[in-house]
Amino acid sequence: MMELRLSCLLSFFMLLWLSDSHPLSERLTSSASNTTIKKAPDVRAEVGRYSDVAKQIIELAVFGAAQNRSYKRLADFTDTIGNRVSGSQNLEMAIKYMYKALSQDGLDVHLEPVKIPHWVRGKESAEMIAPRAKSLAILGLGSSVGTPPEGIKAEVLVVQSFEELKRRASEAAGRIVVFNQPFISYGETVSYRAFGASEAAKVGAVATLIRSVTPFSINSPHTGWQIYQDGVKRIPTACITVEDAELMWRLAQNKHKIIVRLEMGAQTLPDADSFNTVAEIRGWQHPEQVVLLSGHLDSWDVGQGAMDDGGGAMISWEALSLIKDLGLRPRRTLRAVLWTAEEQGGVGAQQYFNLHKENISNFDLVMESDLGTFTPMALQFTGSDAAQKVMEEVVKLLAPINTTKLERGGEGTDISPWMQAGVPGASLHVADSRYFWFHHSEGDTMTVQNPRDMDLCSALWAVVSYVIADLQDMLPR
Amino acid sequence: MMELRLSCLLSFFMLLWLSDSHPLSERLTSSASNTTIKKAPDVRAEVGRYSDVAKQIIELAVFGAAQNRSYKRLADFTDTIGNRVSGSQNLEMAIKYMYKALSQDGLDVHLEPVKIPHWVRGKESAEMIAPRAKSLAILGLGSSVGTPPEGIKAEVLVVQSFEELKRRASEAAGRIVVFNQPFISYGETVSYRAFGASEAAKVGAVATLIRSVTPFSINSPHTGWQIYQDGVKRIPTACITVEDAELMWRLAQNKHKIIVRLEMGAQTLPDADSFNTVAEIRGWQHPEQVVLLSGHLDSWDVGQGAMDDGGGAMISWEALSLIKDLGLRPRRTLRAVLWTAEEQGGVGAQQYFNLHKENISNFDLVMESDLGTFTPMALQFTGSDAAQKVMEEVVKLLAPINTTKLERGGEGTDISPWMQAGVPGASLHVADSRYFWFHHSEGDTMTVQNPRDMDLCSALWAVVSYVIADLQDMLPR
Repeated sequence: MMELRLSCLLSFFMLLWLSDSHPLSERLTSSASNTTIKKAPDVRAEVGRYSDVAKQIIELAVFGAAQNRSYKRLADFTDTIGNRVSGSQNLEMAIKYMYKALSQDGLDVHLEPVKIPHWVRGKESAEMIAPRAKSLAILGLGSSVGTPPEGIKAEVLVVQSFEELKRRASEAAGRIVVFNQPFISYGETVSYRAFGASEAAKVGAVATLIRSVTPFSINSPHTGWQIYQDGVKRIPTACITVEDAELMWRLAQNKHKIIVRLEMGAQTLPDADSFNTVAEIRGWQHPEQVVLLSGHLDSWDVGQGAMDDGGGAMISWEALSLIKDLGLRPRRTLRAVLWTAEEQGGVGAQQYFNLHKENISNFDLVMESDLGTFTPMALQFTGSDAAQKVMEEVVKLLAPINTTKLERGGEGTDISPWMQAGVPGASLHVADSRYFWFHHSEGDTMTVQNPRDMDLCSALWAVVSYVIADLQDMLPR
Repeated sequence: MMELRLSCLLSFFMLLWLSDSHPLSERLTSSASNTTIKKAPDVRAEVGRYSDVAKQIIELAVFGAAQNRSYKRLADFTDTIGNRVSGSQNLEMAIKYMYKALSQDGLDVHLEPVKIPHWVRGKESAEMIAPRAKSLAILGLGSSVGTPPEGIKAEVLVVQSFEELKRRASEAAGRIVVFNQPFISYGETVSYRAFGASEAAKVGAVATLIRSVTPFSINSPHTGWQIYQDGVKRIPTACITVEDAELMWRLAQNKHKIIVRLEMGAQTLPDADSFNTVAEIRGWQHPEQVVLLSGHLDSWDVGQGAMDDGGGAMISWEALSLIKDLGLRPRRTLRAVLWTAEEQGGVGAQQYFNLHKENISNFDLVMESDLGTFTPMALQFTGSDAAQKVMEEVVKLLAPINTTKLERGGEGTDISPWMQAGVPGASLHVADSRYFWFHHSEGDTMTVQNPRDMDLCSALWAVVSYVIADLQDMLPR
């Protein structure tokens, strides 16, 4: 998962930029407005008739032959391949692995080529050398430039906010700016990671070290994407731990002169070849109409990428497997898309949208799981009131696993282009209170995953996607 | 904090060893049996008269001029010195720092020499090289030997328990044994860290990697002391993370051949010179009688040693400061002892006991804080029923901070020799549910500390020690 706020900000800037020449959202929305809207009682009765099949799916996923399957698939995938950053050989291997596995599972599989960013971390280290020697755990940020080979050694300016940086701009020249911003929420706090380097460069800083965006740490640095502003000098930027940011803040408050040496071998190579991985169960009546389920296959280059977003990819595959195992085939096509290069700003998904948006009226529902596959709490949904009413009926089918809550606001970097263009979108809301403890860190491993939770997520994913794909009509827009 | 179970095990072995020639506990216990036992109502009334002074201490510590002081002292101490492992220059600096600070605080200070172990970690690394390349976060264990300079490269045998190791003994020769034991409790599970190397060496293993003894991890390795058995080959031993232990377990279950390369530059140097640091407020009536408060000044060589046991050392100092600030001087001597080399098996404390046990009848109460200085929950106490009754009255004085619970079972590596010899002992029970998440890891920093909690711990420590030191009579044995 990249992040909500960052993706919103990106979208915002892109919309501004596109607004004159590409009035995309209006045109696309209006093209989908010819759908019949049913009366509520009809929908209730129609959806209600899926009660037995929903129970069968849940039974198979949670108690039957498919029990623990998505967890085992995820473990085998991440244990043998490891993390899969955009442009890496591991990501290539991951796509090959999934192509083979999905094909062996009897699904219709194809790959869609995408050019993706290829940023490599290189060797990196940081050390506080005054007032005492202490090594700092760091993770360079995606798209950061490296330091000169001899590193950057400079005095530190520690600030708690962009406001403080502005106030103390005269102290920043030639310094390494350390941001010790408090964690408020991921969505709010991530702006320091995303924009810290450029903001500090504007006032003359030579590098930035940013407190990791997490509410909890065991000396854990987190990485993630960052954005250089055009026309601003590109300076190296990395995240440090909460502990080290607080340490330097306290030392600075006590008037200690802090000197840090930073070495980063990071560089951006030419774009790499990659693919979105697509697997389908073709619809029997309207094969051209699509319910899209998704997660992203790439990850950061730390941990295993089990949580972000191996789990989302696996439950999207698992949903199709469950439906296949039960010999079901819906009216419309069920399509699992495993995106590439999500962490670099939803690159694979954006290209997919660009290529397929001409068929937007055939996209019934787009679904994405990218906030973890912990215990499912609710389905989050973005769509018209009429579509909302249909979805409310559908989630009632999840009573056997006690997840009948429909919340407003489907989200996900990779489905947002569709949702912005008016296609109904849904995402998983899970018990994610610890999600950001592990996010983009070495802690994102199978240890945080749980087979039962993944079964529940898979069941939910399969029931919702199957029923929507099999209803008489597409969701009203 | 070394650990309870390990210290119990050590004590057990030492008692066995000593039992013929040194019937210590009987002799020492009987020498203290001549104390007057008061009737309960007298004690209640006598202790009750300390209600006002207890309130003054609490007021000063929690709301008054001393607010945040123990936290600030701890931050300055650990931020500028860092961690302080036995034998290190940092530990020397720490003792000098405290000697100066305690003296400037107007306390009577002296140092008592101790020879302490000098184990050094050296450079260390581990990498899984099959079935895929993955670096493993490790922390070599205290007293471990190193590897040859070229490292040890060997196939891995993963087991979940000592029982499984025995069952699969024939598979262990020439292997690196990985212990993936589940965490049950620190006291139970630590036996793998303490004895894993020797148990594996007995069946021909060339090294051991032990899952860190913690209920929670963000890829966090933990260190600690380990014990080679006499007559068993000494093989290198380190802790790995929960995540990597589980990873290798899953790979082994799936019949992957796992190969690991381990490099450890660890070595044991000749014993070093060190000191227990002692600060006193001399008693006005019975200066030879002592209430001893303590924490240990050494730490492991990771993190800041803020929790283990900077906090315990600071509240022991702070308790004396609070009493001094209020112009109080109890009948008996209040003595803060900051132990050296606790992590190596309570070395400083054992020597202190050996030197001072001839005066054991003058030791009224020994107190130790070594399980964190988080929100105080209770005082833990070991002593006779009659002493227990006095302590029950004393903790009632803590009503203003809502910590009036007395639990049975004072504990602490450094006061256990005294308690085993019959001296009443007390320790702090704090809200320690996360203690072992940070214990002996890079996560043991000021970030886990909280000024308010430390104020509360200091207030409790000061009230209990002052009142016991000022009562008409010593605690009954």
